[in-house]
Amino acid sequence: MPAQRILSGMRPTGRLHIGHLSVLENWIELQKDNQCFFFAADWHALTTAFEHTAGIKDNVREMVADWLAVGLDPEKSVIFVQSDVPETAELHLLFSMIIPLGWLERVPTYKDQVQQFKQQGRDIMTYGFLGYPVLQAADILLYRADAVPVGEDQLPHLELCRELARRFNHLYRPIFPEPQAKLSRVSVLPGVDGRKMSKSYANDIALMAELDEIRGRVNAMITDPARIRKTDPGHPEVCVVHKYHGIYTGHRLAEIEEDCRAGRVGCVACKKLLAESLEAVLAPLRERRRQITSRPGYVEEVLAEGARRARAEAAKTMAMVREAMQI
Amino acid sequence: MPAQRILSGMRPTGRLHIGHLSVLENWIELQKDNQCFFFAADWHALTTAFEHTAGIKDNVREMVADWLAVGLDPEKSVIFVQSDVPETAELHLLFSMIIPLGWLERVPTYKDQVQQFKQQGRDIMTYGFLGYPVLQAADILLYRADAVPVGEDQLPHLELCRELARRFNHLYRPIFPEPQAKLSRVSVLPGVDGRKMSKSYANDIALMAELDEIRGRVNAMITDPARIRKTDPGHPEVCVVHKYHGIYTGHRLAEIEEDCRAGRVGCVACKKLLAESLEAVLAPLRERRRQITSRPGYVEEVLAEGARRARAEAAKTMAMVREAMQI
Repeated sequence: MPAQRILSGMRPTGRLHIGHLSVLENWIELQKDNQCFFFAADWHALTTAFEHTAGIKDNVREMVADWLAVGLDPEKSVIFVQSDVPETAELHLLFSMIIPLGWLERVPTYKDQVQQFKQQGRDIMTYGFLGYPVLQAADILLYRADAVPVGEDQLPHLELCRELARRFNHLYRPIFPEPQAKLSRVSVLPGVDGRKMSKSYANDIALMAELDEIRGRVNAMITDPARIRKTDPGHPEVCVVHKYHGIYTGHRLAEIEEDCRAGRVGCVACKKLLAESLEAVLAPLRERRRQITSRPGYVEEVLAEGARRARAEAAKTMAMVREAMQI
Repeated sequence: MPAQRILSGMRPTGRLHIGHLSVLENWIELQKDNQCFFFAADWHALTTAFEHTAGIKDNVREMVADWLAVGLDPEKSVIFVQSDVPETAELHLLFSMIIPLGWLERVPTYKDQVQQFKQQGRDIMTYGFLGYPVLQAADILLYRADAVPVGEDQLPHLELCRELARRFNHLYRPIFPEPQAKLSRVSVLPGVDGRKMSKSYANDIALMAELDEIRGRVNAMITDPARIRKTDPGHPEVCVVHKYHGIYTGHRLAEIEEDCRAGRVGCVACKKLLAESLEAVLAPLRERRRQITSRPGYVEEVLAEGARRARAEAAKTMAMVREAMQI
């Protein structure tokens, strides 16, 4: 497959957890043979967090440091912060002029999310929240990306991005490719309590967790409630620890499952093994993170260089856009 | 009254007509004692003309040449094009994140205008059209303007701009003044056929009309239909020519009215006098316009210098905004 231009972003949530690892591993796979743009979506964070912006800057720095620790390579990929490329805002404004309001009102996630936040007693129904897919389209089309790695839930947004590209190309001049979805097999890990993993539930395992923290979190994991004694037969299909083994101790999974069902290995030992498996994966990441943190200003340098490269590409696109629109 | 910072803009309609003169005279009065920013609103033009952008650039140049001919002074005022200040788009995006959707849906002009265009068979209900007042607020607040000369119809937009300034100041840090309306006595001249003056009705008199064109337009003016012969008594209150005399031959208005009512002066002579009055006002403007046009690149120079000065001020505001929002 020929090299493609690929764009993806993440909201700045601060230090990442291991739930993010499979997304990042996917990015790292993509950066091998493609021209990738990865960005910290700080403006997007405002759609739901405009009242609490205090941590955004630090969260960007922490998140990007984690990206680098995991293996995103600033020599290969363009790594940048959304707000460092003001051309994004200009393209967003121009797109806003040609996108029918109805397209946005019909986005399935829109009313769902407004409703969800309402249940939390928060009103996020702003103009910018409605326009979230317009900003996302500007993010993507500003780099004339061919493909975007997305989860299933993002497919309607990407479809809208393609429709917007088609509409622009039709109204003015064909300058935008229609970016394709790169659906990736992303393994969704539950939090230690079995719910969705989220820092706000305090049920996550930080990507940079030290061994003590890993052990603590693994010990807190929900196991088969029917198993009282270690010799009781276990049911791995309801056990969070087992789900994790599936990813982190995959080469011994059959054996682990048998031992559990036969009541040969207790939960304590099983958890000890998982903590070791996790440590084997996370220790080298921690070490790389330490190296990154020991170079003061390194993350800032990476982001400054990323912004420079992103803006150079953005400037090309905007010159084409302004010429096409004759403005 | 101490000097204020004042901002105003006009959509680029190309060559102006004499209906614009009283607005411009107001601007010229304001620039004497204030720090004024005047801009050609090319992005705003897209809200209703996104399908027909071909003429926008030329219209900006023609309009600004007319501004300069009438007496806007680039030494005193900052004269620029909206799209030359990309910071506007950034502030617009940030404002979009904090403005409740309901504020925009309630703007009285919004649904009216959508309806009006629908009757013309055109659908302008885009995201950008709904957000028009957000862009307008960004235009104004980017320069931290104290006051904005507006017509009555623009008051709801300015009120929304003030509410947005208050909301930002409350959420983050007080950096924006609440711009006040400068309601100016603007004389509204009808077109030669008695309808609203508009280039699209071809009932306007161009600000730069030559004497022949002035005469032709004045001769086409609707007069008292009850007056068949020149000795018939006239009714100045229904006569377009008389309305124009009120502004352009004001020092002789009582005499003109008496002569008309008494049937002493016929419409032909009355129109000849009006053409002369108009010529007296417009000839010097034409002459200045000729001087401007004879300097190739002059308008571009004015706009480049205006953009430089506007961006310098915009950069100050955006630094304050980013710091206040911690982004």
